[in-house]
Formats: sequence, structure tokens, C-alpha cells
Amino acid sequence: MVGTITLVYDHHVHDLAEKLTEQQHAHNDQIISSLHVHLDAHNCLEVLVSRGKASEVKRIADELLGVKGVKHGKLVMTSTGEELH
Amino acid sequence: MVGTITLVYDHHVHDLAEKLTEQQHAHNDQIISSLHVHLDAHNCLEVLVSRGKASEVKRIADELLGVKGVKHGKLVMTSTGEELH
Amino acid sequence: MVGTITLVYDHHVHDLAEKLTEQQHAHNDQIISSLHVHLDAHNCLEVLVSRGKASEVKRIADELLGVKGVKHGKLVMTSTGEELH
Amino acid sequence: MVGTITLVYDHHVHDLAEKLTEQQHAHNDQIISSLHVHLDAHNCLEVLVSRGKASEVKRIADELLGVKGVKHGKLVMTSTGEELH
Repeated sequence: MVGTITLVYDHHVHDLAEKLTEQQHAHNDQIISSLHVHLDAHNCLEVLVSRGKASEVKRIADELLGVKGVKHGKLVMTSTGEELH
Repeated sequence: MVGTITLVYDHHVHDLAEKLTEQQHAHNDQIISSLHVHLDAHNCLEVLVSRGKASEVKRIADELLGVKGVKHGKLVMTSTGEELH
Repeated sequence: MVGTITLVYDHHVHDLAEKLTEQQHAHNDQIISSLHVHLDAHNCLEVLVSRGKASEVKRIADELLGVKGVKHGKLVMTSTGEELH
Repeated sequence: MVGTITLVYDHHVHDLAEKLTEQQHAHNDQIISSLHVHLDAHNCLEVLVSRGKASEVKRIADELLGVKGVKHGKLVMTSTGEELH
């Protein structure tokens, strides 16, 4: 399965960016890459693309969404499309 | 408002990549950037970040999800977070 | 080795977007992901992240930069940093 | 002008991720978005797309490449392609 995880957070919250980076590296086999958009002076939007078993992708999303300071987050799951082919 | 639009499609469908690019450029004021991951020999995952009025972001998403050949798609809306600050 | 390949092209050139996508999928083991920014009504900026042997990364870049209609392109090679650690 | 800035850094260096994010937000009018790839347990690859006057884009790149802990970095400048049209 592939999941995209959308996060909005304030990068001024102490250590938040570092904690998010840390957790992403702990799962660097599952997280393919991420896109970062600087919304304004405070807020970041980050979209992560994660690949793995459905349960793994969900767990990674839960961990990231649970980090203190994350204002909004959402997981979209999709298959790699092979069975749709 | 900011929206992330997740699309999965088969890039072999004739003209699909071109139609998607065309529609994105028609809205190039609203679409900040997109992340593309080549899932396998057939399937692409694309995540677009779009910014504008809620109704505009929704309309762009509907247009893209309605392109023939798109297998899966989903819009996640989020605020820019200013009112959450 | 890891390389980032920057491309600027006009998406109106017939079949260009499709040819670029095609070539990227032919190398989908080496190309991790790409970032696309719609510069204006005509021009796209695409940055690809490619991983593999130096010779492979260079060959992929040459192929992409050689596609007719690509206005500007540049490869930046970097190591994965392990030997720098 | 548009520039792509490629950075490789070790996210374990204290405060590095935070300093990089801080500097990017100080220029959030010029930096459109960035792509992040987790290379391994230590190293990050980040590609930023920056838009502005040539001198501004160059200054942003110099600031980012000068942050302590950045192992490798490179700026690729390109025009928005309008004059090439």
C-alpha cells in the first residue's frame, strides 16, 4: 500500500521539526520522500509518501500526527494500483 | 485554504499525463507544486499542493479526479493555519 | 551516488511530457521521486532525485536532457554521504 | 530567475534541521517548495526551488550552504524560460 500523509505544523514549536525528521528517519525504508511548502512565517505544510504494509503505513501516520504541535493531519491510503491494472 | 490532492494513474493511458499537466497549468496560480513518485512500470502517484478559496481548490480537485484514466484520487483540505495560530 | 536533475521545458511541445514520463518509468528503480513546479502558462520546472551507480545516474540525466523540447537542464551529483560520515 | 538548491546534511547535527527550516521561512516569499529524501539513517537530501532576482536566489543559497553541518550543496540557476520562449 501507499499512503500520503498531510501535516500542518508551526515550525516555531521547539524541537518539532527535529522530532518529525527523527521519526521519518526511523522509518526511512517506508518513507519515499516528502514535499514541504512554507505556507507563511509560521506554518509548514508537509506531504509524505509512505510505502509498506497497510498496518505499517497507518502506524507511521499515527506517530507523526501524534507529535505535539502538529495542528492538522490526514492520511490518504491508496493501493499501488497493481490489482487495479 | 490549502488542499493536497492525491492521484494514482497509469501513465500509459494515451494523453493522460498531458491532460493532467494541461489542467494544472490552467490553474498555475493556485497549484504551488506537485510531487511525483513512479510506483512501478505502469503507475504514478502524484500529490499536488493547491492554494486558494475553498471552492476553487475543490473545483480543481474535481477536474483532476474526473480525468479519464485516473484510478484513485482524494482531496485533503486544510486551512493555512492562520486562524489556528 | 545520488543525483538531482533540474529540467525546464515547455509542456505545450507535443508529446514532451509523455516522453519524459516514459523515460522516467523505464528507470523507476533509480528515480526516487520528482518535484514539479508550474512556472507559468508554458514552462515547467522539474527536479528529479535519482539514485544508483554514478554511470547510471549520468546516463539517465543525459537521456532526459536530450529529449527534444527541454530548454535547460543540469545534473548535480552528490554522494549518499556515507563516506563523509 | 529560478534556482534549485541541492543540500545533503546529517539530521543528527544538533539544531541543523531547525536552522535550515528557520532560514527557509525567513525567505518564504522566494522559496516555493522543497523535496526531502531520507537517504539513510543519518543523511537527508533536500532540494529547494527558489524564485526571485538572481542576487536574492544566490544569497539564499549561500546562507543555506553556509549552515554548519551541511556536507554538500549546489545551486543550479535557470531562467523562468520566458525569454527563451
